[in-house]
Amino acid sequence: MLMTLPATLIAHKRDGHIHSQSEISEIITGFMKNQITDYQMSAWLMAAWLNGLNKQETWALTQAMLCSGKVLKLSTVAHPRIDKHSTGGVGDKLSLCLAPLVACCGVRVPMISGRGLGHTGGTLYKLEAIAGYKTRLSAARFEKVLNSVGASIIGQTAEVAPADRRIYALRDVTATVESIPLITASILSKKLAAGVDGLVFDVKVGAGAFMTNLTAARQLARSLVSVSQQGGKRAVALLTNMDAPLGKMIGNALEVIEAIEVLKNAGPPDSRELTVRLGIEMLLLGRAARSEAQARTMLEKALASGAALECFERMLRAHGGDARCVTDPNRLPRTKQRVPVLAERSGWVATCDPKELAWVALEMGAGRTRAEQTIDPAVGIELAVVRGESVQAGQPLAYLHVHQKPHAKKFSARVRDAFSLSKARPHPLKLVLGRVD
Amino acid sequence: MLMTLPATLIAHKRDGHIHSQSEISEIITGFMKNQITDYQMSAWLMAAWLNGLNKQETWALTQAMLCSGKVLKLSTVAHPRIDKHSTGGVGDKLSLCLAPLVACCGVRVPMISGRGLGHTGGTLYKLEAIAGYKTRLSAARFEKVLNSVGASIIGQTAEVAPADRRIYALRDVTATVESIPLITASILSKKLAAGVDGLVFDVKVGAGAFMTNLTAARQLARSLVSVSQQGGKRAVALLTNMDAPLGKMIGNALEVIEAIEVLKNAGPPDSRELTVRLGIEMLLLGRAARSEAQARTMLEKALASGAALECFERMLRAHGGDARCVTDPNRLPRTKQRVPVLAERSGWVATCDPKELAWVALEMGAGRTRAEQTIDPAVGIELAVVRGESVQAGQPLAYLHVHQKPHAKKFSARVRDAFSLSKARPHPLKLVLGRVD
Repeated sequence: MLMTLPATLIAHKRDGHIHSQSEISEIITGFMKNQITDYQMSAWLMAAWLNGLNKQETWALTQAMLCSGKVLKLSTVAHPRIDKHSTGGVGDKLSLCLAPLVACCGVRVPMISGRGLGHTGGTLYKLEAIAGYKTRLSAARFEKVLNSVGASIIGQTAEVAPADRRIYALRDVTATVESIPLITASILSKKLAAGVDGLVFDVKVGAGAFMTNLTAARQLARSLVSVSQQGGKRAVALLTNMDAPLGKMIGNALEVIEAIEVLKNAGPPDSRELTVRLGIEMLLLGRAARSEAQARTMLEKALASGAALECFERMLRAHGGDARCVTDPNRLPRTKQRVPVLAERSGWVATCDPKELAWVALEMGAGRTRAEQTIDPAVGIELAVVRGESVQAGQPLAYLHVHQKPHAKKFSARVRDAFSLSKARPHPLKLVLGRVD
Repeated sequence: MLMTLPATLIAHKRDGHIHSQSEISEIITGFMKNQITDYQMSAWLMAAWLNGLNKQETWALTQAMLCSGKVLKLSTVAHPRIDKHSTGGVGDKLSLCLAPLVACCGVRVPMISGRGLGHTGGTLYKLEAIAGYKTRLSAARFEKVLNSVGASIIGQTAEVAPADRRIYALRDVTATVESIPLITASILSKKLAAGVDGLVFDVKVGAGAFMTNLTAARQLARSLVSVSQQGGKRAVALLTNMDAPLGKMIGNALEVIEAIEVLKNAGPPDSRELTVRLGIEMLLLGRAARSEAQARTMLEKALASGAALECFERMLRAHGGDARCVTDPNRLPRTKQRVPVLAERSGWVATCDPKELAWVALEMGAGRTRAEQTIDPAVGIELAVVRGESVQAGQPLAYLHVHQKPHAKKFSARVRDAFSLSKARPHPLKLVLGRVD
């Protein structure tokens, strides 16, 4: 039995009062036991959306949702254990680079990843492009991989924070998604299930992100960091630019190829540099480095020596994945056709609309908006030029990776229109727009 | 299919925007067709609770809820047709007096009544204390009674404003009851189903009312009047005092007896005077009188001549009720015992807590808080002295109408404590505290 009537709990938030930790716990456990109905929860969510939740309430909500499911102990895994969370971008394959890179610098990376949201891709879809890679491991196996490899990326299971899943399904259809405290608790309740000591947040800002302006993104970053700290975790956030796609590849196997290039100490400069910047934060948070300079040196060395790449290969093998794709990208799923989208005139790439390209890639089959859709790991968009580079009329702006040439037709114009060309060279974009700790 | 996604409609109100009439209509029809779920409706209700609905939106909501059910045409019934609505008081039996009184002054009174809410009694329970009285008539029969008698009081059926019933059930458990626009639409959607030209609102204020302070009551009165007028109806509201019970009787058959006394041109002064005051408003709204003075003369005459009482008898007979109770109150249900509650000391009655007496009467069996409870028409409380009168130690404050003496025991102390006695004679209470038109 609930100690408090559901309507009394709802009225409390409706009237702008602060919930105690035990009230928040009652709301979540009552909901999971069906003592609080869906319609009562959605009324409470709307009251919370409009009247807010403070840091303590948000931490209490995080804890209550976390405790609704399985929390991994990982008692044999050495500390520090640091994870990274991105709020979702376009062409963001950095988790694949970061986990092994940071692991070979002395930090354990127990990473629980999602399947993408809206137009953004999910890390799990990318890993599943690698033949045999299992995103679902038993707790014992996950622990073993963390001990032997140092990094393991698995998928969220139904056992992790089921309250968040039920609440998110309600929020999605009741206009209560875009709330900083509710987003914060949702993210943290899943990320803390792997028993980490600290979290680095990559909060994306710009045309291709959920947060299109810096003020809102900074609010979310502050909330993620302060609520994590309220719960005794180390935390830091970078605000990073998502006005253009990250790197050159959008699509699952294509992004694995780019991640491998970065781990080979090459790849597009933005993907590589942001990997290092986030890696620095993970090493500092894990106290594996004493200074930014030292952290950078460690990471550069791990990339240059091949240690990071080798760690990636071991992670793939530990998950049953085909590690030979590292040396032979042809082992990854690929399309028969690579159809160029040509520039109609010459100029500098002033903008390259990330959200439009993401929706095109999704419609090509690289992502899904409904659970019943299937993912095609091979398809995607490869940028021939990126923002700040020049192109000649008749030269390719991008290549569409499709199975049959006619498939490219309906996407070409949209991809071409996603580029805007200017006569003058545009100012370069800043990669990191801010930091919150 | 809905034209707009439910989440989009919810977000609109969440963000403080104004709904168009067609959006409100979509929300209600979508809800009734189960295209909008309970949890979406409750999120919208909370957004409306917190961000409000303006006059136009509230009228649109009223109309949409009204049109979810049966609206009576009453095409053969003469105009004017005026109804009265009370927001609920203690000892409020005025509908029983008003309907026949006003009808015999040339106004049709098609009255659809409820069954009481919370601690307040319902007009229907009172009428059902009269043997044979049918509160459920066919539309044709209702029309016939209005034509022959001029007044008919029937109960809400499931066919009247079903959207309101479903929405009220949700509001009751999601802390979204106390919202002026939602209350307004709920009241009007039921009251307008009988095709009235105008409405007189009796908005109760004080310890025994839902609105305990004048400011909130005035807000509700303004909303009821302005939204009715927005919908092209004539409307006026009186703010009336509910700091003490109205009249002397609390309980169903007991209240019928008092109503008959008023119709016999007697009865407690407050019950009689408030009947006349509300009657004046109904005659003016119906343009059956040109001035307050003229209206009062007409009403006093109808009471003094016995015309109002005779009209009441005809209304009872038309509903199958035993009209002989008018001359022989013993034909009404009565208890064997009438147990006095004695004053422990002498003094003036300074307060007489209406809510406490209402709860005692309800627990005695005069009302119910759950649908499965049965109503006992005979039980109740008869006040021996009312506020402003004096009592001697050892003399009765009230009489408990119970079936067996021991039953009175557990209520006596509570009834005694509901009275507070003072040495000085208290200032008289004002019966009407304000008027809104």
